[in-house]
Amino acid sequence: MRAAAAAAASAAIGPQDAPASRGEDALAALTALVRADLEACNRLIVERMQSPVALIPQLAAHIVAAGGKRLRPLLTLAAARMCGYRGERHVALAACVEFIHTATLLHDDVVDESALRRGQASANALFGNKPSVLVGDFLFARAFQLMVADGSLRVLAILSEAAATIAQGEVLQLVTQNDTATTEAQYLEVIEGKTAALFAAATEIGAVVADRPAAEAEALRAYGRNLGMAFQLVDDALDYAAEQAALGKTVGDDFREGKITLPVLLAFARGGEEERAFWRRALEEREQREGDLAHAQALIERHGALRDTLARAREYGAAALAALEGFADGAERRALAGIVRFCVDRAR
Amino acid sequence: MRAAAAAAASAAIGPQDAPASRGEDALAALTALVRADLEACNRLIVERMQSPVALIPQLAAHIVAAGGKRLRPLLTLAAARMCGYRGERHVALAACVEFIHTATLLHDDVVDESALRRGQASANALFGNKPSVLVGDFLFARAFQLMVADGSLRVLAILSEAAATIAQGEVLQLVTQNDTATTEAQYLEVIEGKTAALFAAATEIGAVVADRPAAEAEALRAYGRNLGMAFQLVDDALDYAAEQAALGKTVGDDFREGKITLPVLLAFARGGEEERAFWRRALEEREQREGDLAHAQALIERHGALRDTLARAREYGAAALAALEGFADGAERRALAGIVRFCVDRAR
Repeated sequence: MRAAAAAAASAAIGPQDAPASRGEDALAALTALVRADLEACNRLIVERMQSPVALIPQLAAHIVAAGGKRLRPLLTLAAARMCGYRGERHVALAACVEFIHTATLLHDDVVDESALRRGQASANALFGNKPSVLVGDFLFARAFQLMVADGSLRVLAILSEAAATIAQGEVLQLVTQNDTATTEAQYLEVIEGKTAALFAAATEIGAVVADRPAAEAEALRAYGRNLGMAFQLVDDALDYAAEQAALGKTVGDDFREGKITLPVLLAFARGGEEERAFWRRALEEREQREGDLAHAQALIERHGALRDTLARAREYGAAALAALEGFADGAERRALAGIVRFCVDRAR
Repeated sequence: MRAAAAAAASAAIGPQDAPASRGEDALAALTALVRADLEACNRLIVERMQSPVALIPQLAAHIVAAGGKRLRPLLTLAAARMCGYRGERHVALAACVEFIHTATLLHDDVVDESALRRGQASANALFGNKPSVLVGDFLFARAFQLMVADGSLRVLAILSEAAATIAQGEVLQLVTQNDTATTEAQYLEVIEGKTAALFAAATEIGAVVADRPAAEAEALRAYGRNLGMAFQLVDDALDYAAEQAALGKTVGDDFREGKITLPVLLAFARGGEEERAFWRRALEEREQREGDLAHAQALIERHGALRDTLARAREYGAAALAALEGFADGAERRALAGIVRFCVDRAR
């Protein structure tokens, strides 16, 4: 049944022989579609991250204005337009989504000590842990100030719940880290919290700002949630894929930190005692030796764990596409469908 | 003029020969006055810090339920009652204030690595930096969820602005740390942000929830702000006072971290070149030797810097009392006036 769903997903997402750049094209198409809104959103982001305390915009600029792809705010902008919204409120709400995302990145870096973020030295490595935490707090507060100025309690409810769910997911990730007894259900709960919750909120508020019926808000929430799950599954696969260096991401981050992701869970479950001893030593006891990452990649490859992780991502991608079906065909719906390909195709 | 204000403040606060326990009595009186509300608030705090992720309530309990005096929520509860409020909304808003305060403490511990908080090992020392940051985020999000459930955009505006101001003050504190060129104006901006902003918000929302006119909200905001300034000035004085060990607080925290507080600013300004060289070595170059803290205390004592810091605290205390004058005399007003004594008398 799962294989069937995956096949259906692949079919829905597009022909397997599509050019490798197709995902990137989809992101470019979405960006072009809402370019004016995105530019207004970027202006607002820069304006609202200002502070008389100069370190705040300096540090925030490093991460907020560092040319990220703005995937989450793009989703809010396009979802609102797909729902027929013609006003300008969605611009501020998209900025809120990006501020919350940025705050999360800054706080996530506290422990991860990831050396690279978007190909640059992380704010945390450059400025230190404490400034990153406090500037994250500032951006988080700014997000709520923007929401209050917008005045929708419904949006405030959606994004404050998302913020609580994100924190919960991040704590659960920490708790399950270095524990090879982590279940697949726990892993899915982690990525649902740390990633899918904000995607879901970002798209749902597009329907809310357009004052659409509950069913549409629910459908857009399902689209965002499934897209977020697919996005994170692909991310977790990429951390063991040889090609990821091209993305400017450090290779093997998750392995070094002992994060228990689906590729690891699958390889662990399918491996014999000797392999499990390797995973326990490297991820639980965190005793990592030269060549361990390559060995981990080989085990994951041998057991088809990367392939199956990506198949799972395609299933979520198919569910995201299905959630769009109730909306009228048009440029926005096609662009949002394209983003599913963007998320899944990154792994090619 | 400043001396006159200080004298007036002292007179307003009460006779100088009051027993040393008078401040503690004032806190007990306020607590007794709103006991039922406070108990409801404590129940709500425990209820709302729950999560399926067990580490969250575990860590939160360590700091939120560790028997703090709940000064900020007490202020909200009493302010609302003084404004004639008879409903129950103030209970949830008081819990929001405590959650925001707790999140701030958890994030502040990331760098401070203070070994003691309320006489116990800090959550951060016990659980690590990252869990403290993430649980702080969770409590912050929970605070906003509670406000959204309450439904007042005005309260949301007040507390989201306070949150931004707190983060700004904390960053400014970080920027001025280890810099003896810090001005008194910058120091006041720091404590206004990191402490007075939340006190001001906590008391202002008491008037807002009671639907009182803007002038009363403004007066309660002024009371809270001035009380917060007095509170932090006394705190900063206590960090150089020999008696503070009795409070379960580590002695000399600020000195070790190189925080530039008013006692240091005054002693630095009044000292000769040799003394300034000492302060620069200890606080800027952070080259601290055995006996340095005692020497710092002696310099601060010699220049009357502790006395003058406390005099300044009394001025703010007097301003806090003055802000209460427009309210009808009654148990709540007397209790809130008593809290000014509590804050100032801690230094006796």
